[in-house]
Amino acid sequence: MTPEGSAAGLRVAVDAMGGDDAPDAIVRGAALAVRDGVPVLLVGDTARITPLLPDDVQIPIVHAPEVVEMEEAAALSVRRKTESSIRVGLQLVADGKALAMVSCGHTGASFVGAVLVLGVLDTVERPAIATVLPRSDGGQLILLDIGANVDCKPEQLACFAQLGAAWAEVRGVENPRVGLLSNGEEGSKGNEQVRAAHPLIAASGVHFVGNMEPSAAFAGACDVLVCDGFVGNVLVKGVEGAAEVVQHLLREHIKSSVTARAGALLMRGAFTRFQNQVRWDAHGGGVFLGTKGVVVVGHGRANAEAVHAAICAAHRVATGGLVASLQSRLSAQSKSA
Amino acid sequence: MTPEGSAAGLRVAVDAMGGDDAPDAIVRGAALAVRDGVPVLLVGDTARITPLLPDDVQIPIVHAPEVVEMEEAAALSVRRKTESSIRVGLQLVADGKALAMVSCGHTGASFVGAVLVLGVLDTVERPAIATVLPRSDGGQLILLDIGANVDCKPEQLACFAQLGAAWAEVRGVENPRVGLLSNGEEGSKGNEQVRAAHPLIAASGVHFVGNMEPSAAFAGACDVLVCDGFVGNVLVKGVEGAAEVVQHLLREHIKSSVTARAGALLMRGAFTRFQNQVRWDAHGGGVFLGTKGVVVVGHGRANAEAVHAAICAAHRVATGGLVASLQSRLSAQSKSA
Repeated sequence: MTPEGSAAGLRVAVDAMGGDDAPDAIVRGAALAVRDGVPVLLVGDTARITPLLPDDVQIPIVHAPEVVEMEEAAALSVRRKTESSIRVGLQLVADGKALAMVSCGHTGASFVGAVLVLGVLDTVERPAIATVLPRSDGGQLILLDIGANVDCKPEQLACFAQLGAAWAEVRGVENPRVGLLSNGEEGSKGNEQVRAAHPLIAASGVHFVGNMEPSAAFAGACDVLVCDGFVGNVLVKGVEGAAEVVQHLLREHIKSSVTARAGALLMRGAFTRFQNQVRWDAHGGGVFLGTKGVVVVGHGRANAEAVHAAICAAHRVATGGLVASLQSRLSAQSKSA
Repeated sequence: MTPEGSAAGLRVAVDAMGGDDAPDAIVRGAALAVRDGVPVLLVGDTARITPLLPDDVQIPIVHAPEVVEMEEAAALSVRRKTESSIRVGLQLVADGKALAMVSCGHTGASFVGAVLVLGVLDTVERPAIATVLPRSDGGQLILLDIGANVDCKPEQLACFAQLGAAWAEVRGVENPRVGLLSNGEEGSKGNEQVRAAHPLIAASGVHFVGNMEPSAAFAGACDVLVCDGFVGNVLVKGVEGAAEVVQHLLREHIKSSVTARAGALLMRGAFTRFQNQVRWDAHGGGVFLGTKGVVVVGHGRANAEAVHAAICAAHRVATGGLVASLQSRLSAQSKSA
């Protein structure tokens, strides 16, 4: 049994105050999760949350009087606002009083807070935020880092490779193939950072398949794609933007033809499914890898459904024993490296 | 009249030897262009090209005995292989014997070769490769650099802003809005490179709208999106990969339902249009901005249609006077900065 897995009865702590439509969308998303049987507690301003609670579900509230605003500097806000919903939520996880923490608020503050309050696994140079994207071969692609760390040192990218491979194994992928995101497959390609990280990842004990273009990764050439957080964030948001362009182009075409209008109606389910699959937060958003506790961050624009997905993802990875599994797999990798 | 515009009767020089399916796909693409009335000449191994020429079109061949292979180092190959199809094609442009050069071969070699053989416009710190992507508001997004320059200095990004704005003006966009690709809108976001480039672009005389996430750019928040070539390359190939994932997901859904199958049939036109619009080479690939001569590079995997599109794009921008317009607009920007 893992520490998290054994924590029967613990609830997922949900930051009620983070996100563009907080606390409304967060409370609605939490209610959806509770109706699905996922135990949840809300963290935030009790006076603002209580009137929003629906009649049919019971959700405990842990009061937190402060809120980290989006424009605040992450490190400063975490240190100063010790009563913020993010810090209180993280502290519940650290104290073994909550199973995991979910926030759609300030990602940087959640990340810095998690490192500070939860701590970092042994051998982890730097935690990362990972997400799962669909591949065109029907598989799934773990992408990390998607925004926690910019200007990464090559050693950090090698650590992300180990974290991503360990998570893929936890998710049931055997001997996961790890690619290094680059602007060409050849070993000579890449920027300075990528060229320096390449030999480190090759020596890190993971099944390294070399430099990888995003198109090849989406086609199924790797299970884990490693990159700097700046680049990963741009990639994830680019894919999101491209998906919206698809819909626009299709809508335009539909308007211009009765036949296409009929076709679109018949295809509606497929579009919805696609939209849900390609949105990076549809699978539960970004999962922190390398912190001593489970944290899942959602999109700032998260609606109730996305909040619901993030809570379910947090519950799933925490009850699955993510942290303990990562730790043991990282130890095994280090020995084989 | 511009130097290029006045060059009536000049042909587009097409590198017949570059690309995965060269020379076959290149010759077929060139024939498509000629049938459209675009004057073309082929550069490469006469003995290999001649048997591929169709009976119904006349395309002159300029012999070039050498080929730059994909695995060669760009700078070295350009200096050593002075008889390569890329160098011979560029020399034709430099000598005023061709209107523009198109290659689907080694992009790096074309770029280094263009800088060496054609030279660089005054005030241009470093040329870039730009492409045009569709936006969900119906507009078009100029993205640069998409791969010519990695590890750019902040000054280079500021130069790309000027080049991109100038090209947008040439394309008829009034007072084009220039965004700096970043992992968040706030001025404090970005990596070291972006934070250093921000004030330089603000002072460069372009209409700067600040840091820009790709999702916002695709939604229409800017006309020109500036980035490092490593990041731009990843973004373009990520969008391409995402488009392929869309098709896979839709295909899967179609298989599972007769209704959806009928719908897909009706929607076929829309999908094809989307695929054509979102592929970065569908509009003619990457256009060099800042070199003293027009060069367009296509995808290595370019088929005859993509080659055709690249040739037409090269012809269009060259007869439209791209180089002279860029030079005069850059001079005007420098004065207003």
